[in-house]
Amino acid sequence: MTDVAAFSFNKLVIFGVGLIGGSLARALRERGERGEAAGARTVIGVGRSPASTARALELGVVDETAALGDDVALRAALSGADFVLLAAPVAQTQPLLERIAPFLDTNTIVTDAGSTKSDVVAAARAALGVRIAQFVPGHPIAGREASGPDAALPDLYVNRNVVLCPLPENAPEAVERVAAMWRATGACVRDMTPEQHDRVLASVSHLPHVLSFALVEQILNSPDAALKFSFAAGGFRDFTRIAASSPEMWRDVCVANRVALLDELDAYTAVLARLRAAIDAGDGAALEAVFARSRVARSEWQEQRTNAAALGDASK
Amino acid sequence: MTDVAAFSFNKLVIFGVGLIGGSLARALRERGERGEAAGARTVIGVGRSPASTARALELGVVDETAALGDDVALRAALSGADFVLLAAPVAQTQPLLERIAPFLDTNTIVTDAGSTKSDVVAAARAALGVRIAQFVPGHPIAGREASGPDAALPDLYVNRNVVLCPLPENAPEAVERVAAMWRATGACVRDMTPEQHDRVLASVSHLPHVLSFALVEQILNSPDAALKFSFAAGGFRDFTRIAASSPEMWRDVCVANRVALLDELDAYTAVLARLRAAIDAGDGAALEAVFARSRVARSEWQEQRTNAAALGDASK
Repeated sequence: MTDVAAFSFNKLVIFGVGLIGGSLARALRERGERGEAAGARTVIGVGRSPASTARALELGVVDETAALGDDVALRAALSGADFVLLAAPVAQTQPLLERIAPFLDTNTIVTDAGSTKSDVVAAARAALGVRIAQFVPGHPIAGREASGPDAALPDLYVNRNVVLCPLPENAPEAVERVAAMWRATGACVRDMTPEQHDRVLASVSHLPHVLSFALVEQILNSPDAALKFSFAAGGFRDFTRIAASSPEMWRDVCVANRVALLDELDAYTAVLARLRAAIDAGDGAALEAVFARSRVARSEWQEQRTNAAALGDASK
Repeated sequence: MTDVAAFSFNKLVIFGVGLIGGSLARALRERGERGEAAGARTVIGVGRSPASTARALELGVVDETAALGDDVALRAALSGADFVLLAAPVAQTQPLLERIAPFLDTNTIVTDAGSTKSDVVAAARAALGVRIAQFVPGHPIAGREASGPDAALPDLYVNRNVVLCPLPENAPEAVERVAAMWRATGACVRDMTPEQHDRVLASVSHLPHVLSFALVEQILNSPDAALKFSFAAGGFRDFTRIAASSPEMWRDVCVANRVALLDELDAYTAVLARLRAAIDAGDGAALEAVFARSRVARSEWQEQRTNAAALGDASK
């Protein structure tokens, strides 16, 4: 394991200065400003939207900005970069990497923050060809329903999991450097294969987002939507918090992780059908058995999470 | 509207000293202790479980307790009571009212806190017969996933909606007294028919509970449940908070509100099937349209709720 204290770098270039990219930038820049190891000296933000990069600069999330369409500025930004982070919706992975490739130094390590990994790996292979060894796929599992540079927080990754999905072509040192960068934000780094990552995240993240969006959509479609919303309370609030997430990001996730997500959705629909039959039959015992099992599992999960947070361990 | 300041009562008997009954008890007893109007002088807790009523007494949630099976204690508890509140799972409504009826003073008003209303009204008519005018159906829309007397909070009802479903037989003064009792806890009282209540609550409360329990059940049934739980993060946490709710209470709600709940569940399943088709077809535009609509609606709901809370108005 690369020691965070022995690790340093000068220049980080972030494509996408929203919640995810901006939070990494803030965490590493604050380390740099405090003179701590593993701090970034210079963070350059590149984005599609001039308003967004300008806002990131104004907030002090990044030191400099560059426009994606400006060859000269992009070449200067990428020259001598230690790291490049892609933090844009996953469908942009391939066009972004194709745009970056001509300006990429051989020593620069590229990583990403995409919520899906199999499609990102395929996009990176298509865009980078023989230079694929420079790309270390990653996914920081942290989020808020808010998006954009204003939502970025320097402590977003403290005690959060970051998954890396190293490729056979990656040099172990490259993977270790990406891991050390994330550990410097307070995150816990764990390795998975892209397939394993996509199956697990389809279950515990992508599916709940679809289910939450679907509930709000269903209420909107009903004739008494306003009355229903006016009686919605705390249970609805928490269940639908993630229905305020970025539509573009979640559109891309659903399309990119289609196979795993459909598997989980179908398994979920089967559970719902079983509960429907029990409700229809008035089978209270069957319902209570499921609810009691869920309550125990959910309560144990919360307890382990609370204990792990107290120990500063994001892996539990 | 009965003025809270002009309203007072001596004795409240609560059947079920858990979160809902205990919180009402604490709110009214604290008013009484501060010498404020609409405070209760004596609150008596009656329960199935001696451990639970003993705990409520120990915590100071109630002044006295009585065992449900003890005729002498029950008669004494109910003698001269201003109010009786039923705060037990809804399937107990009829047996509880049958047990209470022989000891009930003609001036005592009985109300309830059940999450469903059509079945509660039917149970009350069956148990009370010609004395049905004494029963004013109600439902405070407030909850936490925690249950039992330890979960009771004196401010649980502040700025929360309480629905009353007055019966044609109820005297207007009886309904007003129940409304004034709830307003004294800080709640906003709104009237609905039992059918309207059950349809609205099936949508914004009962269905999300079923969906949340179902997600945890689905993960538990999968071969890599432990791995999945270990990567579950903030989205999962909020989506499944209500899956830690009381299995017995939610079993009863699902059975009691079967018809309305199945309507909502079927409408929801149709939305899910539409989203499934869009995911399968890779139809990003269709997905983004639904997600964007949901995001706007959810964000507006939150904003109205925040504004209403700032104004102390639970009706928004």
